[in-house]
Amino acid sequence: MRDLKGDNASWESYDQLLIATGASPISPDVPGADATDIFGVSTLESGLNIHRRLDKGGIKRAVVVGGGYIGLEMAEALVMRGLEVALIDRSAQVMGTLDEEMGALVSQALRDVGVTLYLAEELVEFETASGKVTGVVTDKRTLPADIVILGLGARPNTALAGAAGIPLGEKGSIRVNERMETGIAGIWAAGDCAESFHLVSRKPFYVALGTVANRQGRVAGINLGGGYATFPGVMGTAVTKICHVEVARTGLQEKEIEALGLEHVSAVIKSRTKAGYFPGAGEITVKVLAEKGSGRLLGGQIVGKEGSAKRIDTLATALHAGFTVEEMINLDLGYAPPFSPVWDPVVIAAREVAKKL
Amino acid sequence: MRDLKGDNASWESYDQLLIATGASPISPDVPGADATDIFGVSTLESGLNIHRRLDKGGIKRAVVVGGGYIGLEMAEALVMRGLEVALIDRSAQVMGTLDEEMGALVSQALRDVGVTLYLAEELVEFETASGKVTGVVTDKRTLPADIVILGLGARPNTALAGAAGIPLGEKGSIRVNERMETGIAGIWAAGDCAESFHLVSRKPFYVALGTVANRQGRVAGINLGGGYATFPGVMGTAVTKICHVEVARTGLQEKEIEALGLEHVSAVIKSRTKAGYFPGAGEITVKVLAEKGSGRLLGGQIVGKEGSAKRIDTLATALHAGFTVEEMINLDLGYAPPFSPVWDPVVIAAREVAKKL
Repeated sequence: MRDLKGDNASWESYDQLLIATGASPISPDVPGADATDIFGVSTLESGLNIHRRLDKGGIKRAVVVGGGYIGLEMAEALVMRGLEVALIDRSAQVMGTLDEEMGALVSQALRDVGVTLYLAEELVEFETASGKVTGVVTDKRTLPADIVILGLGARPNTALAGAAGIPLGEKGSIRVNERMETGIAGIWAAGDCAESFHLVSRKPFYVALGTVANRQGRVAGINLGGGYATFPGVMGTAVTKICHVEVARTGLQEKEIEALGLEHVSAVIKSRTKAGYFPGAGEITVKVLAEKGSGRLLGGQIVGKEGSAKRIDTLATALHAGFTVEEMINLDLGYAPPFSPVWDPVVIAAREVAKKL
Repeated sequence: MRDLKGDNASWESYDQLLIATGASPISPDVPGADATDIFGVSTLESGLNIHRRLDKGGIKRAVVVGGGYIGLEMAEALVMRGLEVALIDRSAQVMGTLDEEMGALVSQALRDVGVTLYLAEELVEFETASGKVTGVVTDKRTLPADIVILGLGARPNTALAGAAGIPLGEKGSIRVNERMETGIAGIWAAGDCAESFHLVSRKPFYVALGTVANRQGRVAGINLGGGYATFPGVMGTAVTKICHVEVARTGLQEKEIEALGLEHVSAVIKSRTKAGYFPGAGEITVKVLAEKGSGRLLGGQIVGKEGSAKRIDTLATALHAGFTVEEMINLDLGYAPPFSPVWDPVVIAAREVAKKL
């Protein structure tokens, strides 16, 4: 143990050890990456740093690098503050955890609020002047920038654990069993440094999300304290929003299904968040994916107006249950005009998939 | 067959017959019940009749008889139009499909928007003048009324079917099998005239709701046309709202569980619709009920601000899956601050129940 406030180091013995070292935002290995006014977002403090910088003034043009959750949410926040916002991503779409046609709806939502997108563009370097960022150079253009936000994902902080001989897994996260115990007896791991298990693919999976970290921590804590608890795994559920457009996903997307060698059918339907005639009914698009033949639900994606995102919970719960899309047709979900069409949009989508099996 | 526009009657043969006679609002058998300005609500037309009467003017004081969905929704609508609204119910609470402490939250929501409640009061008669209603007499008082709305529930229209020898079931509805076929081969029934099956109590059940009628009709239609479809039954899911307060329920309530002779444990928790620090986070109260010992989920009830009601779908889907409250703790539901606390309120409630098993 090293005292971070001094030079003191000491040894401390343990009966049970918990590793909860979290993850760090990925920083790009390109020239200029250490210039000032380039910010990662991972902690409350890093968010406050951006806030303080913006409050200081002189910032008109922001460039967000990366179109995942953090990138999109930062783009929204910067647009709301009145900045001119550009977002670049090396993929041809934002939100890589969505299939292409659903990702396109999110791109449109970003453009609708004024974000300029540069997709399929690779970050090459940052232009700087006196150590301060002034532009973002891609393989296609140079974007002037007063501030840059990095949303390139997170990498588990496992260098120490790995060096100590603790087995690592997906993306360098610490491999754990269902009880959150590592490959070394008496050493446990939980949170963004630890691996998860994907309950649909039945394979190890890494995801850095607060809800997963929180549940893992609870399970590790119970077991450390001599109790018994398990964390069976995740469905890959996630929700976000860009101003008035909500985005949600769960289970496997097309490329994940294909990687498993499974055949699937899917349907994309458009419906309304409330009865069509009810004031405030907004558009909602739902995609449902199922295994060809068996009809086993594999995943779902939602993009729509207020009241859309949390409908993913019905699909996530159905995934936990191992339901087929036919079984979903019989779900007795809540209906009243202020809340839903007679058939809930997620069930409409399941019904369309069932027709194609 | 009788031609309703003339006196002609004729016989028509059939191969397959569908009975879809619906239900009628219950009219109280008390003096004055046929006076003008007393309205039931069952069809679009009956809703329009009330609208037209209000538009004609001279209506200041409304009395709603019955505190179920229709009664509450009409009370809301009349309050929104600026009327003085009183609501009477013979029970000690409104929303008899909720347990007492949850019903009390709904009563409070009604009072908060200005509805005066008279609970545990029996309707005795209507006061009238020149054939027009002028007051509602209960066993405790007389309430002056310019208009009266009846929300006393619905009764299936099955007199003809019963007289024809078709077996009837719960509350006089037409008994059907999973395919919506009646006790007489070749005769089918669907909608508010037909019986359902409760998937938690595993007993016949009658409910007049659009979503159930719609799904029954789909199944009857497929079977009539030579296909094969089943309607396994309902969970008793329902949602409604009173201005900004949303109400939802699914599964069995306490009195239904007791009637089945089951022992149960329950928990009522208060949480927020979004992360507590997020703008617009509102209060949500969730009750979850489970079988003592086994932990099998039996039902759930929700009362809360915007974003509360449709969370019932997670509980309804978990009921379909036969999950225990412990299994619910592992659900991977959507989390982001604009949508939910890290632990969704329905899971917090399930976790509290799991501690008591």
